[in-house]
Amino acid sequence: LIRTYNLALAGFGNVGKEFVRLMLAKRQLLRTQYGIDWKLTGLASRTLGWCADPAGFDASALLEAPGGSPQPGTRVAGLQDWLSKSQASVLFEATSINRETGQPAIDHLRAALEAGAHAISANKGPVVHAYHALRELAAARGRQFLFESAVMDGVPVFSLFPGGLPAVELRGFRGLLNSTSNVVLTEMENGLSFDDAVKKAQQIGVAETDPSNDLEGWDAAVKVTALAIVLMDATLKLGEVERTGIRNLTAEQVRAARAEGKRYKLVCRARKTPAGGVLASVGPELLPLSDPLALLEGATSALQFDLDVFGLSIIEHKPGVVATAYGLLADFIRAVKA
Amino acid sequence: LIRTYNLALAGFGNVGKEFVRLMLAKRQLLRTQYGIDWKLTGLASRTLGWCADPAGFDASALLEAPGGSPQPGTRVAGLQDWLSKSQASVLFEATSINRETGQPAIDHLRAALEAGAHAISANKGPVVHAYHALRELAAARGRQFLFESAVMDGVPVFSLFPGGLPAVELRGFRGLLNSTSNVVLTEMENGLSFDDAVKKAQQIGVAETDPSNDLEGWDAAVKVTALAIVLMDATLKLGEVERTGIRNLTAEQVRAARAEGKRYKLVCRARKTPAGGVLASVGPELLPLSDPLALLEGATSALQFDLDVFGLSIIEHKPGVVATAYGLLADFIRAVKA
Repeated sequence: LIRTYNLALAGFGNVGKEFVRLMLAKRQLLRTQYGIDWKLTGLASRTLGWCADPAGFDASALLEAPGGSPQPGTRVAGLQDWLSKSQASVLFEATSINRETGQPAIDHLRAALEAGAHAISANKGPVVHAYHALRELAAARGRQFLFESAVMDGVPVFSLFPGGLPAVELRGFRGLLNSTSNVVLTEMENGLSFDDAVKKAQQIGVAETDPSNDLEGWDAAVKVTALAIVLMDATLKLGEVERTGIRNLTAEQVRAARAEGKRYKLVCRARKTPAGGVLASVGPELLPLSDPLALLEGATSALQFDLDVFGLSIIEHKPGVVATAYGLLADFIRAVKA
Repeated sequence: LIRTYNLALAGFGNVGKEFVRLMLAKRQLLRTQYGIDWKLTGLASRTLGWCADPAGFDASALLEAPGGSPQPGTRVAGLQDWLSKSQASVLFEATSINRETGQPAIDHLRAALEAGAHAISANKGPVVHAYHALRELAAARGRQFLFESAVMDGVPVFSLFPGGLPAVELRGFRGLLNSTSNVVLTEMENGLSFDDAVKKAQQIGVAETDPSNDLEGWDAAVKVTALAIVLMDATLKLGEVERTGIRNLTAEQVRAARAEGKRYKLVCRARKTPAGGVLASVGPELLPLSDPLALLEGATSALQFDLDVFGLSIIEHKPGVVATAYGLLADFIRAVKA
């Protein structure tokens, strides 16, 4: 027995497009292994506006169209109309993050849950700014609010707890969570200046046009906050993360460290305090090469959890955008099979 | 609402005792977070025989008793009597492995499932020799057959699939899974002869009195087989794993490699073949220091999964016996909350 779900996708950039591509590639497997099929009945982006068609868009054609434009005549007035005309069972939120407010992603997810759809986010903003409210709303409506892609793409860092690791005590964690900083530091070790290393990271598609979000540690701080809120039950706010970026490191410092058998890495940390709170920080640290984190190159990211029963590290090796898209797909399966 | 489960434990060595200790330490948390309580109503070992008391043994007293002996008058005739008199809801199998047959652990688990109990094994033998049969029996009885502790202790390598990683293709994996070999190689790098390195590993409690199971690659081969059968749906037999131990490596070879910036590690591998089978091997490999596996010291173990959506490594840092005991406890929660 196959059940078909109507999907609504907000955001049709790299992640949104790769998600549609992956859903097409995995369609047969979803049918045979999970009894799931899907139609893309809602699509929204800044360029396209709000488009809905309960019959379903031609997903392959959308990917091939230069502007990714759905058929004309499918535009609706706004979020509410979009959810209702698309008859969405699941909303996928893949717009860009607004780190100060988490909007408009929070509004998208809230409206979806209120309309009776599952709410799945690759966007970190809603986790940092509205985790408890969205989780409670989802529970009240009998739907799922999931966000595995928000940190380390589709690597199951959120899904590990509590199912994979029930009844453990998570005392803290540290890790490398910002690809741009890691690429820039490696390129500086290899001889480039800070500015040229940033350009290189932009050329290979890791850094954004405005890389300050990464280089000032904001991206990493957002991820630490999301992890601490969800996994450590912290009431942490983004502004409470002690944050230093890599801008003030000179190429000379970075190369001198390397010559001494050490490496600078932008390390994220969170730790329970004796008072019951959580202290979190992001900043460059000088690591000896014997530290497993020191070895990680390029876009590779890692988290090392300090549990009461063992130490556990999870490493994501050189991920592409498909890794983020996969997190959305995995959350879809988890949501409808819960 | 608290539900109390009767537990029967086969094997009261290091793992069995640590399991009871951990269950006592986590008792309050199990009650408040999961609504679970427990009584140890069955205990069996070569020394103690089959002991059952439906009122429950005094678990703390068992740990303090020199021989860990339950009250006299609780001995019963054998496995069937033991399961029925203990009224067990869950069997924990923590006896030593018989790698040729998987017995008597398979009989314990089968009898438990047939008696309507969940069957939880820290023993790898039943996974290698009877995975499909025990899984089918469990499904037919509406019970769980779980074995997270069989590889990498309580680290959720089995539990990750499929819940944490639904719809992925696992093309293969490699890893370091034998602590003794890793400790011996490190000690040889540090200047000891092969024999002295083995003695050192025995002194620190990593290697057994007869370390040949580890040094000849059998322990690692058993783990690779279990992983391939469960995660890759392989019909692999233990004898089909291409297996070389570390016995033929000399201290000179190991130190010369280190001097050249490389390290010998006992590497486990499994890979899907184009024909649809799985090829598996265990053997010493010369790894460059840039390989994350090369850095792992001592009892640390690791698995690197080759998935179609990203590369994923999981590292267990310097585990103690509590890590194995935790796997049994986590399986208990998963079984009764499934």
